[in-house]
Amino acid sequence: MSYSSNVAQDSLAAAQLEMAGNPNALALRRPFDPVAHDLEASFRLTRFADLKGRSCKVPQDVLGKLVESLQQDYSQQEQDQFMHVAIPRIGIGLDCSVTPLRHGGLCLVQTTDFFYPLVDDPYMMGKIACANVLSDLYAMGVTECDNMLMLLGVSTKMTEKERDVVIPLIMRGFKDSALEAGTSVTGGQTVINPWCTIGGVATTICQPNEYIVPDNAVMGDVLVLTKPLGTQVAVNAHQWLDQPERWNRIKLVVSEEDVRKAYHRAMDSMSRLNRIAARLMHKYNAHGSTDVTGFGLLGHAQNLASHQKNEVSFVIHNLPVIAKMAAVAKACGNMFQLLQGHAPETSGGLLICLPREQAAAYCKDIEKQEGYQAWIIGIVEKGNRTARIIDKPRVIEVPAKD
Amino acid sequence: MSYSSNVAQDSLAAAQLEMAGNPNALALRRPFDPVAHDLEASFRLTRFADLKGRSCKVPQDVLGKLVESLQQDYSQQEQDQFMHVAIPRIGIGLDCSVTPLRHGGLCLVQTTDFFYPLVDDPYMMGKIACANVLSDLYAMGVTECDNMLMLLGVSTKMTEKERDVVIPLIMRGFKDSALEAGTSVTGGQTVINPWCTIGGVATTICQPNEYIVPDNAVMGDVLVLTKPLGTQVAVNAHQWLDQPERWNRIKLVVSEEDVRKAYHRAMDSMSRLNRIAARLMHKYNAHGSTDVTGFGLLGHAQNLASHQKNEVSFVIHNLPVIAKMAAVAKACGNMFQLLQGHAPETSGGLLICLPREQAAAYCKDIEKQEGYQAWIIGIVEKGNRTARIIDKPRVIEVPAKD
Repeated sequence: MSYSSNVAQDSLAAAQLEMAGNPNALALRRPFDPVAHDLEASFRLTRFADLKGRSCKVPQDVLGKLVESLQQDYSQQEQDQFMHVAIPRIGIGLDCSVTPLRHGGLCLVQTTDFFYPLVDDPYMMGKIACANVLSDLYAMGVTECDNMLMLLGVSTKMTEKERDVVIPLIMRGFKDSALEAGTSVTGGQTVINPWCTIGGVATTICQPNEYIVPDNAVMGDVLVLTKPLGTQVAVNAHQWLDQPERWNRIKLVVSEEDVRKAYHRAMDSMSRLNRIAARLMHKYNAHGSTDVTGFGLLGHAQNLASHQKNEVSFVIHNLPVIAKMAAVAKACGNMFQLLQGHAPETSGGLLICLPREQAAAYCKDIEKQEGYQAWIIGIVEKGNRTARIIDKPRVIEVPAKD
Repeated sequence: MSYSSNVAQDSLAAAQLEMAGNPNALALRRPFDPVAHDLEASFRLTRFADLKGRSCKVPQDVLGKLVESLQQDYSQQEQDQFMHVAIPRIGIGLDCSVTPLRHGGLCLVQTTDFFYPLVDDPYMMGKIACANVLSDLYAMGVTECDNMLMLLGVSTKMTEKERDVVIPLIMRGFKDSALEAGTSVTGGQTVINPWCTIGGVATTICQPNEYIVPDNAVMGDVLVLTKPLGTQVAVNAHQWLDQPERWNRIKLVVSEEDVRKAYHRAMDSMSRLNRIAARLMHKYNAHGSTDVTGFGLLGHAQNLASHQKNEVSFVIHNLPVIAKMAAVAKACGNMFQLLQGHAPETSGGLLICLPREQAAAYCKDIEKQEGYQAWIIGIVEKGNRTARIIDKPRVIEVPAKD
């Protein structure tokens, strides 16, 4: 890591243009207009990568095979090394790694994530990337992040002008989101890459009671989801507004206005922090949680189920989806696999196992504090640590925020 | 972060082929032979990126401008927040970030780095990437790493077969190097990317006396370098053995045998940890250090000089270079800028400010412990926080290890 610094103080002009004077007043922000930055009207950030957001993940089974080489040696030797401490070592397979430290009962909770642009507004892209990285901490019930690093790949295909407009805006969005989370970005790495890349590292040092090991689901628990599905469908549909042959495939089920609303709902949702959702996990005695990202709702549900101590399975009955996006997904045939639970999400909600009697109160509390709904989407029953969606799940249409 | 796990235990076959039964006995390792893995004889890992190693860095001045947007707000507000602790906040501009923690006088020292393949042996590439990330910690005098994450980009251009051979070997190399450093890899992120990418995150939680803030050089100090320069020249020259038109440019000054030796010396050097170099910094009262990577010796020297509390400058007289690589660089005209101090290095040595009377003992001690030379390459004089190389620096030819 080696960010140099002694350069004139003028690079924020572009970013400040966007802010309408108040960096935190997102409501006041004008949407990104390439022309206002002397870029071509046709400039689209999403064109600087062939994959979008979390759909860049290496398939789950392939990845599993590849990381075998990392796992197999965290064996007896490693375990023994930590036997003198009461903190279990948590590694590959969950949202964060948890490492016991040399110092007084503390542990290190850490995660990293990076991906490709999936919205065309660079500032929002930065916010989404930051929210997405932090989400792994929140999934473990950790609400305080001590430090963030930023990982950036500047596309080889960007002109200098494009780079100088777009990269500071991405950085600013990332940083504003970090500030909103009560943390800050102290460094990172920036490289040149064919595709534009954005991501980061989030780190917390905490007491063991600050995180929730997500392995404690019991029969009778219910599953709560804190954000709607369909972000990937929404960003794709929005891109198709520019592509008549694609648009023709979906225009019978959705209007331009519907797509624009869904796109903004998706951006709003992806840039929202799961921090309050995490805080309330402690208040309502959550038994475990994961965040829904590149492997889709079912992929992450299955992964969470596989880590349970008890012989339980997850059954999902309800699918809250950004309004009209279920219809778009259906109109596209098997492409998204949204209702099958396989559509990748970016910076999705937390999927939480909660005691049945606390779940409604959890949902009510989150709505009261944030003005966003959460949904009970399924149940935990006796089983062999798998997850499934029922045959005809109920789709809950989640409207755009006003 | 989300590495899944429940997959059959057979993916290490390829990696184990390489190990001759003992993963730590590097000396026993056969070099990577694509054919032994059922890959084409012409398979070259370095072809999966158009840039090599640390030459992928965004230029120093451009980067400085871009990160302005991160820096400007670590202002009074942030400073105040930490005023109750005695630990200074160290951010962008140095090798690591140092963040005071909520818990008992501890601080978080953290760094990240990633880049592209620059050698064709996947296992060695993994080792080099790991040593390179750790090197930022070592540059701050931190000798214990508490946790590592791995960042991988699997090239879109790799066949499945190539991927399944190469990626486990890279991971294994990375992990072996982490074990050698007394730490382990607990997670990471793997994405699909046009270019193959490899890197990581290194994190330590420590007492303030475990790190050395690199701002304390005084007039009369000398500069020590712990690894030879010329890694980038060596890996390029080695690649040119396959490219007659390139090879013709340098064959008058160097033999094939010289180039192969230099390439192995470079791999050996890049995969060597700077850990003992860091440990000895404490013993011999170093006043500050940085590691030499993508911006070249002079770029990093200048950055270190610019952070000094005292009005000093660095003057470099000697350039230790892997044998014959200075001649190769000269034969290539201005291409590498090696003797001007601008040739990028990957996982280079530490450049350390040491009290004059301790420097020789430092060099002797490191040679005794590791069998590798270190060199006094310059002096610290009164000045305005800049660094330069004298007009005709002495080139020290550093031979291959036997």
